Amino acid sequence: MQLGMIGLGRMGANIVRRIVRDGHTAVGFERRTEHIDQLAAELGENFQGSTELQKFVAMLETPRVVWVMIPAGATGAVIDSVAELLDPGDIIIDGGNSRYHEDIARAAALRPKGIHYVDIGTSGGVFGLDRGFCLMIGGEDETVGYLDPLLKSIAPGVEAAPRTPGRTGTPSTAEQGYLHCGPAGAGHFVKMVHNGIEYGAMAAYAEGLNILYQANVGNESDAEHSAEVTPLEHPEYYRYDIDVPEVTEVWRRGSVVASWLLDLTAAELHADPNLDTFTGRVSDSGEGRWTVDAAIDEGVPTPVLAAALFQRFASRGNAVYADKLLSAMRQAFGGHHELPKG
Amino acid sequence: MQLGMIGLGRMGANIVRRIVRDGHTAVGFERRTEHIDQLAAELGENFQGSTELQKFVAMLETPRVVWVMIPAGATGAVIDSVAELLDPGDIIIDGGNSRYHEDIARAAALRPKGIHYVDIGTSGGVFGLDRGFCLMIGGEDETVGYLDPLLKSIAPGVEAAPRTPGRTGTPSTAEQGYLHCGPAGAGHFVKMVHNGIEYGAMAAYAEGLNILYQANVGNESDAEHSAEVTPLEHPEYYRYDIDVPEVTEVWRRGSVVASWLLDLTAAELHADPNLDTFTGRVSDSGEGRWTVDAAIDEGVPTPVLAAALFQRFASRGNAVYADKLLSAMRQAFGGHHELPKG
Amino acid sequence: MQLGMIGLGRMGANIVRRIVRDGHTAVGFERRTEHIDQLAAELGENFQGSTELQKFVAMLETPRVVWVMIPAGATGAVIDSVAELLDPGDIIIDGGNSRYHEDIARAAALRPKGIHYVDIGTSGGVFGLDRGFCLMIGGEDETVGYLDPLLKSIAPGVEAAPRTPGRTGTPSTAEQGYLHCGPAGAGHFVKMVHNGIEYGAMAAYAEGLNILYQANVGNESDAEHSAEVTPLEHPEYYRYDIDVPEVTEVWRRGSVVASWLLDLTAAELHADPNLDTFTGRVSDSGEGRWTVDAAIDEGVPTPVLAAALFQRFASRGNAVYADKLLSAMRQAFGGHHELPKG
Amino acid sequence: MQLGMIGLGRMGANIVRRIVRDGHTAVGFERRTEHIDQLAAELGENFQGSTELQKFVAMLETPRVVWVMIPAGATGAVIDSVAELLDPGDIIIDGGNSRYHEDIARAAALRPKGIHYVDIGTSGGVFGLDRGFCLMIGGEDETVGYLDPLLKSIAPGVEAAPRTPGRTGTPSTAEQGYLHCGPAGAGHFVKMVHNGIEYGAMAAYAEGLNILYQANVGNESDAEHSAEVTPLEHPEYYRYDIDVPEVTEVWRRGSVVASWLLDLTAAELHADPNLDTFTGRVSDSGEGRWTVDAAIDEGVPTPVLAAALFQRFASRGNAVYADKLLSAMRQAFGGHHELPKG
Repeated sequence: MQLGMIGLGRMGANIVRRIVRDGHTAVGFERRTEHIDQLAAELGENFQGSTELQKFVAMLETPRVVWVMIPAGATGAVIDSVAELLDPGDIIIDGGNSRYHEDIARAAALRPKGIHYVDIGTSGGVFGLDRGFCLMIGGEDETVGYLDPLLKSIAPGVEAAPRTPGRTGTPSTAEQGYLHCGPAGAGHFVKMVHNGIEYGAMAAYAEGLNILYQANVGNESDAEHSAEVTPLEHPEYYRYDIDVPEVTEVWRRGSVVASWLLDLTAAELHADPNLDTFTGRVSDSGEGRWTVDAAIDEGVPTPVLAAALFQRFASRGNAVYADKLLSAMRQAFGGHHELPKG
Repeated sequence: MQLGMIGLGRMGANIVRRIVRDGHTAVGFERRTEHIDQLAAELGENFQGSTELQKFVAMLETPRVVWVMIPAGATGAVIDSVAELLDPGDIIIDGGNSRYHEDIARAAALRPKGIHYVDIGTSGGVFGLDRGFCLMIGGEDETVGYLDPLLKSIAPGVEAAPRTPGRTGTPSTAEQGYLHCGPAGAGHFVKMVHNGIEYGAMAAYAEGLNILYQANVGNESDAEHSAEVTPLEHPEYYRYDIDVPEVTEVWRRGSVVASWLLDLTAAELHADPNLDTFTGRVSDSGEGRWTVDAAIDEGVPTPVLAAALFQRFASRGNAVYADKLLSAMRQAFGGHHELPKG
Repeated sequence: MQLGMIGLGRMGANIVRRIVRDGHTAVGFERRTEHIDQLAAELGENFQGSTELQKFVAMLETPRVVWVMIPAGATGAVIDSVAELLDPGDIIIDGGNSRYHEDIARAAALRPKGIHYVDIGTSGGVFGLDRGFCLMIGGEDETVGYLDPLLKSIAPGVEAAPRTPGRTGTPSTAEQGYLHCGPAGAGHFVKMVHNGIEYGAMAAYAEGLNILYQANVGNESDAEHSAEVTPLEHPEYYRYDIDVPEVTEVWRRGSVVASWLLDLTAAELHADPNLDTFTGRVSDSGEGRWTVDAAIDEGVPTPVLAAALFQRFASRGNAVYADKLLSAMRQAFGGHHELPKG
Repeated sequence: MQLGMIGLGRMGANIVRRIVRDGHTAVGFERRTEHIDQLAAELGENFQGSTELQKFVAMLETPRVVWVMIPAGATGAVIDSVAELLDPGDIIIDGGNSRYHEDIARAAALRPKGIHYVDIGTSGGVFGLDRGFCLMIGGEDETVGYLDPLLKSIAPGVEAAPRTPGRTGTPSTAEQGYLHCGPAGAGHFVKMVHNGIEYGAMAAYAEGLNILYQANVGNESDAEHSAEVTPLEHPEYYRYDIDVPEVTEVWRRGSVVASWLLDLTAAELHADPNLDTFTGRVSDSGEGRWTVDAAIDEGVPTPVLAAALFQRFASRGNAVYADKLLSAMRQAFGGHHELPKG
């Protein structure tokens, strides 16, 4: 089967590599010639590319399958451009990080032209080439069914994890690492929630490890400690010098919190035990926010996911005004003066 | 009636002032002579003081009433010292910010000596002299009853607030601003929870006002904004320049969030509209922590009170290690690099 | 000055009463004749009303001032209808609980017709008639300035609270209880955040009082307690029977948490000490949700406001599926069985 | 090497099985004869057991190694009893779920008798026999070093997970699944935080999956929805019927949130797709509470871990009084009536 890929950045290129490895062919569009040349050198006759959209479309067999894999901000305009060049029966896939609201609108806009729209949330990050990409898919049954050979090649495959107890017979596509989640937008909806969970789980590790990291506060001199806060009732309980990198390593085997995120954390802490290369300003990329927005719309309580999101906001200094207000109130009712920064 | 006060700092001195104004007499103990002299000059023959504990005790009529009003850290030792000098039937009051656990222990330790112990949580801060102090009291019925004339003089009185609809007849002591809450520790327990609520309410104002303060983020250039986070979907919704000090002022009259804390906030914002005299490092003084500890022991969910407490911890930089971990994980799975600080 | 009021429910009628009391006149539109008759009987010649929109408009002097005070869901359609009947220079006020997004759209839609649009967030609830309404206003400078006599009459007035220390000279409008917050939408934006703060402050009280209410868990038999959770390490710390209604009363005078919300809570607890008339299903009416949405858009951390919102969702049973998942996981890794409901 | 095990429940028996499989011998103490007989039948001459503590101690070679693996509530008394029977140089291990405070006290109490005390936090649950147990260890260097052969046999071993990139040479013990974390209490301290993280991560999944589960709220009739809350602005965004069990399955392969907890969740949802066998009353077993207590003592913000804990409290009905207060306040200021339960 043939796949057309718009955007040969890391993610797009790796998806192309996975399908070609599995016997399919690919056509690429990308403005940066070197990305096309690199893939052509690697993949030989099974790949061809162009820096011109019209030529790219012309290289595709019908019904054309066009996967758009570019930053979310640019996706809408590119889909509009390519849709102009397509014919009824062709398929456009948005594999990026669009908000699912846009999928619903785009599918509706393309439907009168006979163009089928599929949204795919793609997880796997920089490891996807080897590990495979977990695919969450939204769109019409028939269209998604048509794409099955490609999706199967991109996904990790059933052997990527032990089979869930009780599952027998032919593995479902979910067991192979890809799932048709529902109509337009369902793929990005599920991916959005996936990332929301990711924020929460990341924060759980970060908070817990921070407790271990500061488990020696009982060794600080009382004077130092009590200047700003109430003195520790039991300093003798906080005199541990925990080797946090080794703790993350030991938890990787046999513990309840073993996970891929923990594997990555252990690797980072092994490479940079004190995390000196980081400042602690944590970005957020949309999905975490949209997840909480959706929870609020649905009336579903998500205190953990929201707390994880707010922690990131605060890490970038966005709580400072609120903190100043707290200090001002304390001064007003109690005459408490702020202490200078350590 | 006569009151002995140990500690003539702002709070102790103002309590003395209130009872003398109301026709009682007071004896003070304090190491700093100038504090004694100041009160003696103000209050004349109704006040006498000493810098020696033994002399102080000797000046008291029996049964002696000794109110200890010093920093929580020093309270235990002073109570031990003074108890040595007292007789059966005398009364010791801890009016400071002790943890109620200590009240339970102290009351039990003094009981065999026939000394009565009363714990009083005192709210009112720097305004207590004029406004009166709200008193939350723990101890034996008879002892607390005996102290009633003094407590009534210290408390704000029924006219300090409009009477609650439905309350008729002789006002209860609660309506006068003092309440016997239960046996030893009950006073500090209720005061502790009072402060926990205070933390939560303060945070509610601070967070909301922060939203108003940053209501113009839609005016930032997109480039600036999107470098670190997802671009605003609707920048046109965030182009307000809200006058936060005036908003706090308008809410003081007729709104549901009118409160004494809001009064204070409006005053602070009037004096320093941009809060330039503050850095945003917020101290915490014990009660907020103990409140959450108690909630956890009881199995009572307190997400708001705990979030308010954690916000203060984070304001002092205690989340930085956790934040670095988040950045490290993001780099690991997504190749995301941290952006340099603004 | 004359005011036209669409909607003579509790809020609309009380606003009419306040302005007429202050020397203005009013015209009302309302489908329920009895509401019109009631006001006419009360207010005499200074009020007239109609059940027909066209007649209502005809009764108004130009430039017409039309205040729409009806449920948010119906506001848009009514504004569209009345705008059809107005002339350039007339003014429409939305005094209800619309989302500020709609104000921005409506102001823009009415501008080409020369109709001025003003949004007013109104706080004061059932007490507004006597206490006055706190008004947060969005719109053009000139239009809001034109309405000043009416706004002044509706607002509580400067005497409703002690003047903030440091404020001198002629009181600002904020000191009188009304504030022009910015262009279209600014009034409802500030009101929205006001309600968000209200949610947070309410939750702070509710959580703290819940700790007091359950301060006797140490009296439960161990067996009872430990069946489901870890036994209390110090049951002796939780043997208080706190009179929660009296505690809310005592805090009303002299304490840091004194507030109007506390006044109301004390009144409710006096009338129904165990809150037996309530089930604990807490509604939410939009503003709390929109506040958190705005915070997320701005990147402002609001852990307290969000926790307060989520608590309401959970009170209506919306967390049950999540809770079942937790039980399922516990069973899976630890063989823990759920205990039957008490 | 020989291990004495007190308590042959699931955990204790499986630890015995693992060491005997690996060439060690074991002696067991247990009151329930059938547990001893079962192990004797399985393990033959490499295991012997007794229902009498004195006989059990007599069977042990010196220096004796006694691992106590019984419910936390009973551990202290059993350690006291067995310590009476031991000699200087012997070793007691608490492998259960004691609070680390007790470890510090016990180690200090046993030190004068020359008995060495080691605390081991043990993770692995019902899967530990096959998967191995993750061991977090506190105690003196020499003692822990002496136990190394046993610990290595109990732990999962390096092959249980891919080696962390960058780690070379002989694997550390952490890479084999056991870690000496520090002096007395350090093992249970790290295990405590491990469980705190577990609570947070579990909640992240549960909240996110709840959003997916309720992604069809846009299909509810408006009337139904708006009776209690503000109507959905965009019901068309919430018309998905997500197959939650399949989503957990697809995330197991290639996604960022793949984890052992997710594996277990997928298995539970496969077995009981609607979780009908659960009511949603979630127990908590101590460590989650102690983790937040420790965070508060250290001044470390843990909003996510605390929110996860409070969610469990609320699942058992402990928020109802707070919720009733919220309803009471809403009635007081806005005249809002509570809606009857669905």
